Amino acid sequence: MSAIELDSVESVLKTLSIEDYEKLSGLLYGKGVSQISLKEDIVLLSHKYDIDVAIEKFSSQEEQLRSPRKTRVGLFQHKTPLPTWSRIKEMRDAMFKLAGEALEIAYKGGVNVFCFQEAWNMPFAFCTREKSPWCEYAEEAEHGPTTEFLKGLAKRYNMVILSSILERDSLHGDTIWNTCVVIDNHGEYLGKHRKNHIPRVGDFNESTYYFEGNTGHPVFKTEFGKIAINICYGRHHPLNWLGFALNGAEIVFNPSATTGGLSEPLWGVEARNAAIANSYYTCAINRVGTEVFQNEFTSGNGQPAHKDFGHFYGSSYVTAPNGSRTHGLSRTRNGLLIAELDLNLCRQVRDVWGFQMTQRLDMYADLLKEAIKPDFKPQIIEKS
Amino acid sequence: MSAIELDSVESVLKTLSIEDYEKLSGLLYGKGVSQISLKEDIVLLSHKYDIDVAIEKFSSQEEQLRSPRKTRVGLFQHKTPLPTWSRIKEMRDAMFKLAGEALEIAYKGGVNVFCFQEAWNMPFAFCTREKSPWCEYAEEAEHGPTTEFLKGLAKRYNMVILSSILERDSLHGDTIWNTCVVIDNHGEYLGKHRKNHIPRVGDFNESTYYFEGNTGHPVFKTEFGKIAINICYGRHHPLNWLGFALNGAEIVFNPSATTGGLSEPLWGVEARNAAIANSYYTCAINRVGTEVFQNEFTSGNGQPAHKDFGHFYGSSYVTAPNGSRTHGLSRTRNGLLIAELDLNLCRQVRDVWGFQMTQRLDMYADLLKEAIKPDFKPQIIEKS
Repeated sequence: MSAIELDSVESVLKTLSIEDYEKLSGLLYGKGVSQISLKEDIVLLSHKYDIDVAIEKFSSQEEQLRSPRKTRVGLFQHKTPLPTWSRIKEMRDAMFKLAGEALEIAYKGGVNVFCFQEAWNMPFAFCTREKSPWCEYAEEAEHGPTTEFLKGLAKRYNMVILSSILERDSLHGDTIWNTCVVIDNHGEYLGKHRKNHIPRVGDFNESTYYFEGNTGHPVFKTEFGKIAINICYGRHHPLNWLGFALNGAEIVFNPSATTGGLSEPLWGVEARNAAIANSYYTCAINRVGTEVFQNEFTSGNGQPAHKDFGHFYGSSYVTAPNGSRTHGLSRTRNGLLIAELDLNLCRQVRDVWGFQMTQRLDMYADLLKEAIKPDFKPQIIEKS
Repeated sequence: MSAIELDSVESVLKTLSIEDYEKLSGLLYGKGVSQISLKEDIVLLSHKYDIDVAIEKFSSQEEQLRSPRKTRVGLFQHKTPLPTWSRIKEMRDAMFKLAGEALEIAYKGGVNVFCFQEAWNMPFAFCTREKSPWCEYAEEAEHGPTTEFLKGLAKRYNMVILSSILERDSLHGDTIWNTCVVIDNHGEYLGKHRKNHIPRVGDFNESTYYFEGNTGHPVFKTEFGKIAINICYGRHHPLNWLGFALNGAEIVFNPSATTGGLSEPLWGVEARNAAIANSYYTCAINRVGTEVFQNEFTSGNGQPAHKDFGHFYGSSYVTAPNGSRTHGLSRTRNGLLIAELDLNLCRQVRDVWGFQMTQRLDMYADLLKEAIKPDFKPQIIEKS
């Protein structure tokens, strides 16, 4: 198993003098983000359920013609509560219990839109390349057991819930998809999005199980803002982030499952860059803990067969359209990050920076059309 | 004028315990980058010319069929050596002297490709909106005085030089462009690239002086690798970075001029994200110091007229295709950052991560074509 894991980047930075910490914080995290202290009922629930809780808030400008459009998002990162080889029904029930606890805290914290990590109700078992029993976790998007469970809580808590699961599409050959289901705050199914970009890297053998998504770049218009979901590996693709921006997203969630050895130095960069480039909020959520499997597997890295593929490092965070970001949740513990956003900040930043006005999409539409041709000739200048 | 400026993010991080620093460094800067100690002749020149020097190196894998393709890049950040209101010829001569010093150190440090900051041979005067005398700095790209000056040094030092200047195009109505000239290591003009995205933000009134570039996304095939230039504000545009990748770039330089109040929390994110997303090296170079102008100007921010627009914060750095990055140069002093790159790492990272294989350009070519239509209908899902 793994060595003792660092709790978080911030836990180290906070050992600096207050003066130094503040200087660095402004440069590393940006301005206009502040922490809100937790009310006692939330502290109690946090201890009771052993879920870290943090609330932060981004500042925005007052406008003359629009009232602030405040939304609270909740990002929940968690471990797998039972051994990976537990019976599916038992595992799912344990996940539901944990989800219920997190949603209860989120409700007390005023969350309007709640998002789970990727494939939240199961182990991240794609490292094994085994189809059984993992494919049994797949369920129908609109009426599957996970969606039905969450509909009740969404209605009770008046909360939009984004539930990233394995989807089984029995209408189309029983295919499996990596899908995020959107349930509105009245407890009704609003729609779904299928992961657009599927990894073939290291232990992330996901293309063994499901194909690239065919649902485009939908933006879900909810009572709490226009939201979209860029699932996991899609965060490496700036065009995927752009697709949601073109369709008008104000908040894009990135439910993920990614491990320390592979991606950690990239984690604070990619979703944050997407917020900057597209002038919207991004919410990056990563699984936490180390998952051990019953059967050995190999990782395509020349190393011996083994039973775990490293540490999911949590570190979930939110970035505002101006590039300011919250602290990250712990690298090691279950946690709920609540962030208060003013959706008006998206347009305010667009007016200031003008990235949309200056982006010259027509030029890039032409370039991409050329670049996909088999006989594409790159623009190379060399000595004749 | 400005308060005392922090020297660098790293100068604060280095006050941590060695153990904590190393933990953080791996998470914040990535792995496989190491510092090379300076030889005595470089230390002497560094003191003589008052130019900080740092050399870092990225690791890569050995391959069976290709030898390593090592290239050393040099990123030079500098202040304006004379008051902004100096006579143009005097200022340019002072800049040439400084450039000669930096190039001499770069030569001793084995640099193969050297890049200046944006509009390096002049004050960054676009805040003033005055056309006179600043437009007089513009010169013809292929045979202007700056290019002619650098051709000699490029040949003497066997070095490719990227020189970002104001270009005067007398063939097309005496128009002015923000252009980077590429001089090869034989001292010959190889070509030029014109800045694709022009800011209209705060003091960066550049659209008053020049238009969006019309040179596409050229990649210059040199003896030291395939290089491209994304000038300043273009770093906010992921599609601009992608354009150079589609044409095969292995190193993309980002000569910039940007100030602390505006962009500093974004600085470490954008060029780094571009390296990750496109699996190439990026070299971000920022001007340093505070430039004071003779006449007052306003900044479009409701504040009184004033004579400077803040501190250019330097902090130049290099990122590898795997997301690892060097430390930043100082926020306050002239500096030369030398980095040793193995160009083979680009393809090695592409093979591991597969971002190019999985990027689905055909889908995005279609999406962009739709999105530019005046009657584009975004893909929005809402309750019916």
